[in-house]
Amino acid sequence: MSSGDKESKVVIIGGVAAGPKTGSRIARLCPDMEITLIEKGEFLSYAGCGLPYYISGVIKERGELMNTPSGAVRDAEFFHNVKNIQVCNRTQAMRINRKEKTVTIRSLRTNQQEDMAYDYLVLATGATPTNPPFEGIDLLNVFNLNKVEDAEAIMSVLESGDVRKVAIIGGGLIGAEMAESFHARGLQVCLIEKLPQLLPSLDEDMSLLISRYMEDKGVRIATDTTVTRLSGKSRVESVITQDGKIFDADVVLIATGVRPNSQLAHKAGLEIGDLGGIKVNEKLQISDPDIYAAGDCVQNTHRITGKPCYVPLGSTANKQGRVVANNICERPDRWRGVLGTNICKIFDYAVGSTGLTEKQACANGYEVLTVLSPAPDKAHYYPAAKPIFMKLVVDQKSRRLLGVQVIGPGGVDKRIDTAATAITAGMTVDMIAELDLAYAPPFAPAMDNLITAANIARNKLDGYLEGVSPQDVKAKIDRKEAIVLLDVRSLKEYESMHLSGSVCIPLGKLREEYERLPRGKEIITFCKLSLRGYEAALILKSKGFTDVKVMDGGLL
Amino acid sequence: MSSGDKESKVVIIGGVAAGPKTGSRIARLCPDMEITLIEKGEFLSYAGCGLPYYISGVIKERGELMNTPSGAVRDAEFFHNVKNIQVCNRTQAMRINRKEKTVTIRSLRTNQQEDMAYDYLVLATGATPTNPPFEGIDLLNVFNLNKVEDAEAIMSVLESGDVRKVAIIGGGLIGAEMAESFHARGLQVCLIEKLPQLLPSLDEDMSLLISRYMEDKGVRIATDTTVTRLSGKSRVESVITQDGKIFDADVVLIATGVRPNSQLAHKAGLEIGDLGGIKVNEKLQISDPDIYAAGDCVQNTHRITGKPCYVPLGSTANKQGRVVANNICERPDRWRGVLGTNICKIFDYAVGSTGLTEKQACANGYEVLTVLSPAPDKAHYYPAAKPIFMKLVVDQKSRRLLGVQVIGPGGVDKRIDTAATAITAGMTVDMIAELDLAYAPPFAPAMDNLITAANIARNKLDGYLEGVSPQDVKAKIDRKEAIVLLDVRSLKEYESMHLSGSVCIPLGKLREEYERLPRGKEIITFCKLSLRGYEAALILKSKGFTDVKVMDGGLL
Repeated sequence: MSSGDKESKVVIIGGVAAGPKTGSRIARLCPDMEITLIEKGEFLSYAGCGLPYYISGVIKERGELMNTPSGAVRDAEFFHNVKNIQVCNRTQAMRINRKEKTVTIRSLRTNQQEDMAYDYLVLATGATPTNPPFEGIDLLNVFNLNKVEDAEAIMSVLESGDVRKVAIIGGGLIGAEMAESFHARGLQVCLIEKLPQLLPSLDEDMSLLISRYMEDKGVRIATDTTVTRLSGKSRVESVITQDGKIFDADVVLIATGVRPNSQLAHKAGLEIGDLGGIKVNEKLQISDPDIYAAGDCVQNTHRITGKPCYVPLGSTANKQGRVVANNICERPDRWRGVLGTNICKIFDYAVGSTGLTEKQACANGYEVLTVLSPAPDKAHYYPAAKPIFMKLVVDQKSRRLLGVQVIGPGGVDKRIDTAATAITAGMTVDMIAELDLAYAPPFAPAMDNLITAANIARNKLDGYLEGVSPQDVKAKIDRKEAIVLLDVRSLKEYESMHLSGSVCIPLGKLREEYERLPRGKEIITFCKLSLRGYEAALILKSKGFTDVKVMDGGLL
Repeated sequence: MSSGDKESKVVIIGGVAAGPKTGSRIARLCPDMEITLIEKGEFLSYAGCGLPYYISGVIKERGELMNTPSGAVRDAEFFHNVKNIQVCNRTQAMRINRKEKTVTIRSLRTNQQEDMAYDYLVLATGATPTNPPFEGIDLLNVFNLNKVEDAEAIMSVLESGDVRKVAIIGGGLIGAEMAESFHARGLQVCLIEKLPQLLPSLDEDMSLLISRYMEDKGVRIATDTTVTRLSGKSRVESVITQDGKIFDADVVLIATGVRPNSQLAHKAGLEIGDLGGIKVNEKLQISDPDIYAAGDCVQNTHRITGKPCYVPLGSTANKQGRVVANNICERPDRWRGVLGTNICKIFDYAVGSTGLTEKQACANGYEVLTVLSPAPDKAHYYPAAKPIFMKLVVDQKSRRLLGVQVIGPGGVDKRIDTAATAITAGMTVDMIAELDLAYAPPFAPAMDNLITAANIARNKLDGYLEGVSPQDVKAKIDRKEAIVLLDVRSLKEYESMHLSGSVCIPLGKLREEYERLPRGKEIITFCKLSLRGYEAALILKSKGFTDVKVMDGGLL
């Protein structure tokens, strides 16, 4: 058919995020197209990302997750009256008949089946939790959190009142968010993760800080722990690991990730990517040019590496829906991929990352330089200032920023968004250090955290500063290397807490007392944040000490 | 002399922001250089931007403004011991003797004068309040707020207890911040501005929202009001305007802006820019290559227009200090200018802007398109979501973002920093709409406010949406043009408040009831935020109405 025909029939499969977005946009651009939305579930266009906050009690009414900002309920009637979209909910798409250009659908209400003709087909089929094949997974009180119905089921069990202990299997974003949600309801929470760390979007050093923080809040954390089965009579009673550990649990949430719903596309002979998502071109078109795909069912491209990646997010789904609609309405648009930007709230911390982690960057062949920089997020003397801990991943060769991770109670999201924009523009750390960011004491330090971190990276790139990671320092100590650990905080700070084996010369005394330090040994300077440690290293270098390094990130 | 000589003498004039930064960085990079810092006042390296918060009581101790993040006091001893910088405070630089390469300085303690030799001279002389020549300006209780000493003087009068009314002359950043500070101390505050609007970094439409907000908070605002004299016996008692209005005031703060301290440079025959600041090249060098300048005394370059601008800020001063130090230490660095980014806190609102305002963009010859977009700063169903009101200024020709203004109680600083980064990178609204920004309900809507605004700009650029500003609508009403004001909110919303003369057809009814609207007349649709207004315009267009516009920003 001629593309963009005014009265084309568009069939969209999937009614949560990318689907409704695509439909609404087509209805705006091409009001004469006939748009039908097929959704397997009851509910449309709900805010799946809001479910953890519904369970924690932060969001009081389920309905709030389904309303527009002006309070209208996004039901079939709303889509019909406002958007001119016909909705078939509780309807399953069974088969794509590409030759006939029809979709076979079946009503879950009546079980009746029919073929629906399309000129354009949009696949927005989303993703499904990947439940590992545990024994006992069908016991009562074992849940996923993927749909509104899941949240309802969890809520009704929690409200029954006899739940005390919850085990979450999977320490990714959902697992970590839900640890807070269950904790907020007064439950004992245990978070179990197969890998050695929580949150794979962070490097291990940053992830460790989050684990400690969650433990301080009372969440039990078990990393490096593989679950093999769930046990109980009819209701789940415990989670049992490979090495025989038993975690008691009245409720189990499985949050081991999701996989793209690409079976329908696969059965129709459409191409599926290596990561399991539907393969699309820059127009978000599939190998069949009358079929588009958007949202969690699609395999994405990483904007830095150009390689396939799978980062299912509501923000991406919405943006992709717009691109698909534009292309169907003959307004050529393209989708260039994602940076893997993500953020989550865990108690009072925000945890965000964008671009490549150190691990990912190394795996992609970059010669990586990193910076760890903890600092207050506002002018340090402004009472509302809170710390954030930032890690930069920089390409040594091009000096370009490859990735940023930020965690802490302060303004994390701002630095992530600024960094994501800088990375997208291909900025070097030199360009970032020069950015004219908004400064006033209630909002940022005079040199924003991102600028300070970029400047530390420049110092390292230019050889003015040699850093050593806390892990490497620990390894040196464990190997009993002959190093000097020089703590340059005040004596008072030193007395309240210090690394065993470290010597203390406060920064202000160092120019007088540097002779106390032995020549010829490696000296590692540090303070609380490493700002004073950095000054100390430069003073010692000026005094002829040659092997001086600064511990990245300091004691924090 | 040969540049970067290891034992060069560096003399820095000015000890607040750019000066100490330059000195500290030189001491790090070239520890053998002899660095002397000349400061006219008593105090060094204090946080001038924090003074309003000291006066409001948010910051309890003056000392906090002078301490490092680790609590050390930045006094002469600190600079000597830690930074290896000699400090001469209470010392005035009288004259630069370029031939002899000396500076004549005079101690304000002893009145003794001497010539100090330099290899490199750094001018970081800051700025001074521009006090208009009002009659009565020397009365008691008339203040500026430029130095720690000013804040002390204001505090001692406020603490005397018989102050009830404060008049602030000048409605820029400092004036607006100080309105809050005085108000926080329970004083009656009047803010008097000569121009028709507060905050020249905003366009008039955005500025009006701030004025209204401040008035709601109890600040009396008088724009378009020129002060001619201050009246009183020994203490000030009132402020009198050109047209004879009298504002009673026990204290008057003059905040009509600052001018760069460039006299010393001027007397030495160095070039001064049209805006009064010292003229520098990209290395921040003056016409004499052994002399550098940084901070509030320098005339800047606007990164978009390439034209001179003067935006004195602590953030810029710190960044420039680093560039000067790098250049002196033979590590070539350049300064490309500023975007004019600024932010301030006014009660619970943040007010920020970056790049060009609509007015500035038009004055610079751009064909400008604007977007007004009010929306919650987080997922609308997340309880902590707060509104922000955003204005984009876009170049129609290149589709590049030229400027952004954001105000409101929500996350303003994040959008300003992200936009500043995008503008620096020369991004078009198309590129901005595609940014992979951090999304989770506690941090942002699925489509971040900046992305939504960029998408509205794209719709306008591509002719899908014709907007009309609220001012233009008002003008049309005043001219009694035959327009239809179509309110598409719910009847309940309409009943509680509406524009007189408007008709209400709720969006959900419009597809049924559009026949109620007259053909051939201009129809202007709107709702609270204009999202529904936008949908309504598209529905009407699809029904054959041709002259349909959306009111930018809606009723808000």
